[in-house]
Order: sequence, then structure tokens, then C-alpha cells
Amino acid sequence: MIRAFAAFEPKGERQPFEFDPGALKASEIEINVEYCGICHSDLSMLNNEWGMTSYPFVPGHEVIGTISAVGSQVSQFAEGDWVGLGWHSDYCHDCRSCNTGDHNLCSDAQGTIIGRHGGFADKVRADASSVVALPSHIDKAIAGPLFCAGITVFNPLVQFDIKPTDKVAVIGIGGLGHLALQFLNAWGCEVTAFTSSEAKTKEALELGAHSVINSRDKNAISAAKNQFDLIISTVDVKLDWNRYVNTLAPKGRLHFVGATLEPLDISVFGLMGAQRSVSSSPVGSPSTIATMLDFAGRHKIKPIIEEFRFDQVNEAMKRLESGDARYRIVLKR
Amino acid sequence: MIRAFAAFEPKGERQPFEFDPGALKASEIEINVEYCGICHSDLSMLNNEWGMTSYPFVPGHEVIGTISAVGSQVSQFAEGDWVGLGWHSDYCHDCRSCNTGDHNLCSDAQGTIIGRHGGFADKVRADASSVVALPSHIDKAIAGPLFCAGITVFNPLVQFDIKPTDKVAVIGIGGLGHLALQFLNAWGCEVTAFTSSEAKTKEALELGAHSVINSRDKNAISAAKNQFDLIISTVDVKLDWNRYVNTLAPKGRLHFVGATLEPLDISVFGLMGAQRSVSSSPVGSPSTIATMLDFAGRHKIKPIIEEFRFDQVNEAMKRLESGDARYRIVLKR
Repeated sequence: MIRAFAAFEPKGERQPFEFDPGALKASEIEINVEYCGICHSDLSMLNNEWGMTSYPFVPGHEVIGTISAVGSQVSQFAEGDWVGLGWHSDYCHDCRSCNTGDHNLCSDAQGTIIGRHGGFADKVRADASSVVALPSHIDKAIAGPLFCAGITVFNPLVQFDIKPTDKVAVIGIGGLGHLALQFLNAWGCEVTAFTSSEAKTKEALELGAHSVINSRDKNAISAAKNQFDLIISTVDVKLDWNRYVNTLAPKGRLHFVGATLEPLDISVFGLMGAQRSVSSSPVGSPSTIATMLDFAGRHKIKPIIEEFRFDQVNEAMKRLESGDARYRIVLKR
Repeated sequence: MIRAFAAFEPKGERQPFEFDPGALKASEIEINVEYCGICHSDLSMLNNEWGMTSYPFVPGHEVIGTISAVGSQVSQFAEGDWVGLGWHSDYCHDCRSCNTGDHNLCSDAQGTIIGRHGGFADKVRADASSVVALPSHIDKAIAGPLFCAGITVFNPLVQFDIKPTDKVAVIGIGGLGHLALQFLNAWGCEVTAFTSSEAKTKEALELGAHSVINSRDKNAISAAKNQFDLIISTVDVKLDWNRYVNTLAPKGRLHFVGATLEPLDISVFGLMGAQRSVSSSPVGSPSTIATMLDFAGRHKIKPIIEEFRFDQVNEAMKRLESGDARYRIVLKR
């Protein structure tokens, strides 16, 4: 039996929940969950904001632990190995995306918390292809957030060939944004942080931003025109996107990794004259996660976390909802 | 004196208009206008739809003619040379875009019909840097539309590294679209045309489309899901853009060259899972225009036009407004 914490309805409290996972599949591994980060999408899914939640719902897709069992066809892992598991738990292994290394874009990829039970549990299972070995130089207690927040902001740098000579910006300095600032600074870029929180100005500079713009100050945003080669938006609320588009350099890109629900209402004219793009991406492939872990290790990039025990899960989720966490919450055994 | 046809107010008829252009600048050339294509943006400007028209307004930015005078600093052209002039008549020559060959993205680039008098005239002037020599293998009588419509749909193929293995689509089969189909077919791509006109199905196939989808048939569009690496939209009306986004392959791009005024209301979720992009671009640089002319010549790509004499300019503009022209209207001396 797997002992988990589940919500039984939208916005429901997390309650103890046991289930029998059945026999381990030949291509699967089972992880003893030691740590699990909490992502805002755990909350969105718990509340069924995206209309695809099934209950009982076990959140958790930033899993760190040791392998407790390996399926008969799994050769790349052994019991006791430290590994991480992120947003995806399996792929179709047969589409053009899978066949070209873009497993994260597989339209049949299985979400760790979509129709499956996630990492708020003593054990979690996943297809071995979706699990990534944790290098010894990564601190296990804080590694969880790299597997969703981290890879989500790192992946665009690889996908869009961002160069150390580029000027870049990050909108929103939270779980994703605080890692984006660190990655972009280590990438060699000139980094600007947009934040609505005056209190975060100093923190953003310490995290790697070279300058900070108050996102409530329309004039300050407008004054930053035509300069950013890439802006990564990590927020899930609607902002005045055309104002940000105008801060993009020619050929610049406004890239969304935050799951903003409202349509973008972007003006074609704002894109046209300077050949600008708007885009979005999910997490990265397992291969890119491994690259990200190596890069994070070499550059001392670390999630800043607040720790809660697994039996404090309801308290932890409330802390997440408060928006005050600095910057990511991790449950520990 | 230059003898032109000008509108004196929004939606005004074109009337004869003479003006003294003053002394030729050292870096300018003057063109004897032999042919001038008519673009939908001539009409939008004439009606001041974009709020930047000054009157008297002389339309015309698809100019073909011979050089009648060269400024004292111009060495690359001589009197009598056949040349073409498109949307831009000068650049700042000092910004990052100009310095990296992207003159078309220069924010201080001067539009041929913005604050200047265009090609509905016996003569037109432009900075020599914005003028492109017409290769001998290009038919002069039909070349005008290559300088705006042609380069506008050709430029994205260069900018976004489109490959002959790509599946591509064109929305709207008119002045721009009928050239896009020819370019994309010659580029080696698998080409789909989206058109609301049943009558254009056969024409689109003859122009280079391998298949045609009726853009009024929502189910047909939805059935084409996850396949296009690039869609070029040439229309200036609002369509159900999220429906088209869903027809993009992973990493696919919906690219706007039509100046749609209404905001795009694109959903982030439609972009995110498959890492799709939305973008827009204007015309191309003079260097890309020269590349386009070479490619068009080698691949027998030709604008299909209806000819009017310059003194039939009002009749020609009415024909443009009718939307029935096949596919581009060209004024001739």
C-alpha cells in the first residue's frame, strides 16, 4: 500500500489516503519519497481550475527520493539511487516529439498528478524514462523545485538559443522567478526583474538581477522600450502585455511559463514592426533536466525554500496560498 | 516638378497633384516610375486607418522604374538602371538593426508613403540604400508586387529557418497569399491554403498549394490539428486564432504579415504544451529583397496582376476595394 495525502474534492483539505498501486510495471521504478516541492500548479489542480482533476487527488510533482524498486526492463537505475521526478511521469515514446528528444512536448505525455497519484506520499511510481538521476553535487533537501520550477525557466534558454550577450527580463519573482534570475545571471545575460513587490527589490538584486523595475509603475515599464531579447513571464495573472511587448528589442520574445488563463490580447502592430514573438513552453525533457542539474551544480544555483514535514501538508498549502513564501515550499519526510 | 495623384482627405478621390521635391540629396536617387503596384496598405493609409497619414497623400510603394538622377554620393547606381522600391525609402543607418543587416526593423526607417510622397507619380525619390536593382530575368511589368507583397511573405522563410521538410500553411489567398503559395512550394515545403472562397480552391492548387481547407469550415480546421510548422496569415480581419494555433505542430509558429487591427486573444495554454509561437514581421531588408528576386527568378515565381494605366487610378483603387482582383493591381505608364 502507498500512504499518501489526498484531496477528495475541489479545495478540499488534504487527508491521509492509502491505495494499492498494484504490480510494478516492467518499465517503471518506484521512489521512496524523501522530499517533495509544492508548485502553484498543485494548487490549481487541487482546485480543478483547469478542469482536468480527478479525485481523490494526490498533489506533488517535485519529487526527490531513493529508488525502492525497479521494473524488470529497467537497466539504467538500481535500488537506492537518488533520483528526481517532475511534471511528467511517462511519454508515448512513439511520436515525432519523443523521437527527436522533445519528450516534454509529447501530446500523450502523462502528468505526474493528472490521472495519477503524485508525490505527497511515501512512495510514487513513474516510467523510468521520466526519472532523472540526482548528481552528488546537488543538495537533496532543496533539489525538488529544480524538477518543475527550475526546468521550466531553464528550458527556454536552451530552446531559443539565448546568448550571454542578450538582455533579458523576468516578470514575477516567486518560485519560478527566483530561479530564473539565478539561471539568467549564470548564463551571462544582463538581467532585469519586474516585480510588483517593493520588498523584493533587494532580494531580486541578490538573486542575480542587475536592475529591478516596479511592475506597478507603468511609466517605468514604458521607459524600458526596445531592449529585451527575452522576457520570461512567470505570473499567472493578466498584465498589460502590450506594454511589455514594447520593451522587447527587435526580434525579441515574450515567453510565458506562467499559466495565465485570460487571453493575451496582443496587438499585431506591436509585434510586426520589430519582428517580435510571443510564445510559451512547459517543463523540459529529461535530457534537458539533466543538463540543467549539471549547470545548476556548476553555478551554485539553489532554490530558496521553506521546509515543512509531510504531516504539515495543510499548513504548507496555506502558506503557498498566502503568496508570502520565500520562495518555494518543500515537504520533507 | 513631380506630377502625382494624391488624396486630399481620408477616403478622398485621387486627383492630379504637382509638387516641387527640391534639390536631390547626395545619398538619394530619383526614379522614373514605369509601374507601381497597389497594396491594401495604400488603401488603409489613404483612409487614415492607422492614424498616421498626412495629406495630400500620394500612395504607391511597389515602384518599378529607371533611375533618372543620382545624388553626388551614390556610386552603386547609374542613370537608366532598372530598379525597384518598396515600403521603405530610407533607414537611420546607425542602430543595431541597421548595423546587423536588419534595416527593415529599424525603428526610424522611413515609409515610402509615410510623411513622403509615394509612387503614384511620374517620379519618386528614395535613399539609394533602400533601392534594389532589378535583375534582367524579372519581368518589369509584373515585378512591382514583389517589392511589398512578395518580400513580406518571403522574409519569414529566411528569418525562421523554414526547411523544405516543413509543413506550412497560408491563410488568405490574395495579393500576399498568392505569392506565399508560390514561394513555399518552390521552397520545397508541403503547402496548405486556407481560403474562405470556394472559387479559389482550384486557383490555390495551381499556385502551389498541395491541399486547400475552407476557412469557413470550423471542423475542417480543427481536423488539421498538430501539423503545421509555420502558418503565414495574410488577412487583416479577425479569425478564430486559437483554432489555427491548434493546427500548429510542436514548436510551430503562427506568423502574421497581415495587419490585423483587433487584438489576437490567444490562449497561453494553446501555446504552452507544444511550445508554439505567435509572431509578426514587416517587409524585408534590401539584401533580403535582392535574395528574393534571385529566388523568384530561378523558380519562375510571378505575381499575377491586373493592369491599369496611371490615369485610371481611381478605377484601379475601386477594383482593389472590391476584393475581386486576381491577385494584385499594377498601374503602368
